Amino acid sequence: MRTEEQIIQFLQTRHSGGGRAGGGRFGNRMAVGIGDDAAVFRASRGSDWVVSTDQFIEGQHFIADCHPPEVVGYKSLARAASDLAAMGAAPFCYLLNLALPRSRTGAWLDGFARGLARASRQFGLRLAGGDTSHGKTIGIGITVVGSAAHGTALTRSGARVGELLYVTGTLGHAALGLELVLRGVHGSRGAMPLLQRHYFPEPRLAVGEWLAARRLPTAMIDISDGFAKDLHRLCAASKVGAVVWEGKLPQFGIPAAWSRLRLKSLELALHGGEDYELLFTVPWRRRTRIPSRIAGVPVHCIGLVRSEGRIQLEGFTGRTRPLSARGWEHFRSGRS
Amino acid sequence: MRTEEQIIQFLQTRHSGGGRAGGGRFGNRMAVGIGDDAAVFRASRGSDWVVSTDQFIEGQHFIADCHPPEVVGYKSLARAASDLAAMGAAPFCYLLNLALPRSRTGAWLDGFARGLARASRQFGLRLAGGDTSHGKTIGIGITVVGSAAHGTALTRSGARVGELLYVTGTLGHAALGLELVLRGVHGSRGAMPLLQRHYFPEPRLAVGEWLAARRLPTAMIDISDGFAKDLHRLCAASKVGAVVWEGKLPQFGIPAAWSRLRLKSLELALHGGEDYELLFTVPWRRRTRIPSRIAGVPVHCIGLVRSEGRIQLEGFTGRTRPLSARGWEHFRSGRS
Repeated sequence: MRTEEQIIQFLQTRHSGGGRAGGGRFGNRMAVGIGDDAAVFRASRGSDWVVSTDQFIEGQHFIADCHPPEVVGYKSLARAASDLAAMGAAPFCYLLNLALPRSRTGAWLDGFARGLARASRQFGLRLAGGDTSHGKTIGIGITVVGSAAHGTALTRSGARVGELLYVTGTLGHAALGLELVLRGVHGSRGAMPLLQRHYFPEPRLAVGEWLAARRLPTAMIDISDGFAKDLHRLCAASKVGAVVWEGKLPQFGIPAAWSRLRLKSLELALHGGEDYELLFTVPWRRRTRIPSRIAGVPVHCIGLVRSEGRIQLEGFTGRTRPLSARGWEHFRSGRS
Repeated sequence: MRTEEQIIQFLQTRHSGGGRAGGGRFGNRMAVGIGDDAAVFRASRGSDWVVSTDQFIEGQHFIADCHPPEVVGYKSLARAASDLAAMGAAPFCYLLNLALPRSRTGAWLDGFARGLARASRQFGLRLAGGDTSHGKTIGIGITVVGSAAHGTALTRSGARVGELLYVTGTLGHAALGLELVLRGVHGSRGAMPLLQRHYFPEPRLAVGEWLAARRLPTAMIDISDGFAKDLHRLCAASKVGAVVWEGKLPQFGIPAAWSRLRLKSLELALHGGEDYELLFTVPWRRRTRIPSRIAGVPVHCIGLVRSEGRIQLEGFTGRTRPLSARGWEHFRSGRS
C-alpha cells in the first residue's frame, strides 16, 4: 500500500516525458509544474495563470453527520483558495466536481450551495464550470484559477540559508475546533467561537497578493496539514533546514474553561491542521519592509532558515529539539 | 431529489453575482462561463485559456470489476480531453484528483497510471498538479487546460437556422462495446475489436483544432452522452432546432456474428454514449471548405439546422419523426 506522498511521486515518475515531443509544445510555458501549491502557466506577456486542484471527501476531510453542509461548502472552496494565496495569486474563478448520493441532493445540497456561494463572494472566485454525478459518498473536487503578474508567483523552493521565517495569524485555533467536534462537545455552551476557524477558515489571499506584488518572500506555502508538516515541505523543496523559536510562535490560547480537555496549545499550533495561514521566508536585508500587519492580519517573525538536514524547535531556555514532520492526516481510522 | 441538470442549474443560480463587485475584477476576462464544454479566459493578447473539469466515478462511469485499470486511467483523461476538442482548443496540461480505497493503491494503481500515461502522451497533456486522498470507492476528477488563438474557441451556442450539421467518425461503436461488457460477453472470442472504442476512445483534438483555426464551424459539441442528447444540448444553447438525415448517419455496423445480441445499430448510434465524436454546424456558404476527412477522420454532413422547437429524424422515405433527447445516463441502477 502506498501513502499519499508515494502515490504523487509514483504518478510523477510515470509521467516524466509526458506531453508531445518531450515536454510538449507548451512545455516552456509551464513555469511551475507538479509539487508546489499550484501550477503556473507563463503567458508571453501580461499575467501568468495559476491553477490548483483539491479534494474534499466525506469521511476524510469532513464528517457528514458532524459538519453542517454550509461548512462543507465553504471549506471546500476555502481550502482550494488557500493554494492561490500561497502562490501570491489573485483569485479569478473555480470549477466544481461534485459526486453525491441521492439522499444529499435536497436539503443537504441547499446548505452546501449556501456555504459555497458565501465563500465564492468572500474570496472573489466565480463558478466557471464543473461536473455533477451520483456517488456512494460525498466527493467534492475544486479547481481554482488565479493570476499573478508575470514572474511573481511564489513557490516553495526559493528559501536560502540565513533568511528569516515568517507566519501569519495564529496557529492551532482550527485544530482546537476539530478536537471539539471529534470529542462531540461542539454543541456545548461557549463552543461556538472556538469552532469558527475550523468551520470557516480564512485563506490569506490579500496577504499573499500583497507580498507577491512587492516580491518580498523568497518562498511561501500555506499551512493546510499543520505548521511542522508544511515547514518540512517548504524546507525539502528549498533544500534547507530551519530553526523555529518557540517563544515567537503565535499559538492560539486555549480558554481556561476548556482545560478539562487536556489539550496543549503548542501541540495544536505545531501539528494541528487547517490553519490556512501563510508561512514564508524573507532575506535579512528586506526584513524592515515586512510590517507587523498586512491587510489586517498579524505577521510574526518566528525563526531562521538554516542549512539542509535539521528542522529544530528552540525552546524558551535556548535548548533545541528536533521538530518532527508529524501533521494532520485527515481522519485516521483510529481517531474518529 | 434533483437530477444532474437541475443540480447544475441550481448551483448556477446560487452563484449569479458571485465574485468581487458583481462579476469580479476579472469578469470581463471570462469569455465563456458555465454551461459549455469548457470555460474560456480571454487574455488581453495572444492565446485564450480553455479550462474544463470532469469526473470518472466507480459504479457510475466504470465498473471496477469489469473495466481494467488501464482503461479507467486512459478513459478518465480521454473524456476530459474531449471537452478541449469540442472547443477547438490545443491541449496543454491537466490536474488530477484521485480518491482511492487502500486496496487500490497497489496493482490497480499501477495499471491506472499506465493507462493515464498512455493517454497523456497520446493527447499531449502533461500532468501539472493534483491531490490524492483515501476514499471508500474510486473517484477520479480531471481538469484539463488548453489554449486557443484569441477568440477562436467554439461554443455550443452559435448555430443559426439554415446551416449544415456535421459529425465526425462513426456513431455507436463505443456503445456496442459497453453492451458487450454489461452482458458479460466481453471475454468472448472476437469481442476485442468491438471493445476498442469503448475502452480507448479517441477525442478528436486534431479535428477540433483544425476547424477552430479556420473558424469554419459556428457551434460545436462533443458527443459524450449520445448523439441525440448532445444534439439537443447544442440546439438548446443555440436556440434552434434540427433535422437529421437517417441515411447519412455514420452508424457503426454490428458484425453478423453478434446478431444474437439483437442490438440495433441506429439505436446505438443515436442514443449510445461515449463516442467522443464532434458535432458541429457550418454555414451553407462555407460547406465547400469542409473536406471529407480532417486529420484522417471522416467527416459527414448529416442534417440541417432548423428553427427552434423541433429536433427530427428524417428516414429513408422522407418521413420525419421526433428525435428524443434520450441518452446514456451512466450506469443506472436498473441497468447494470
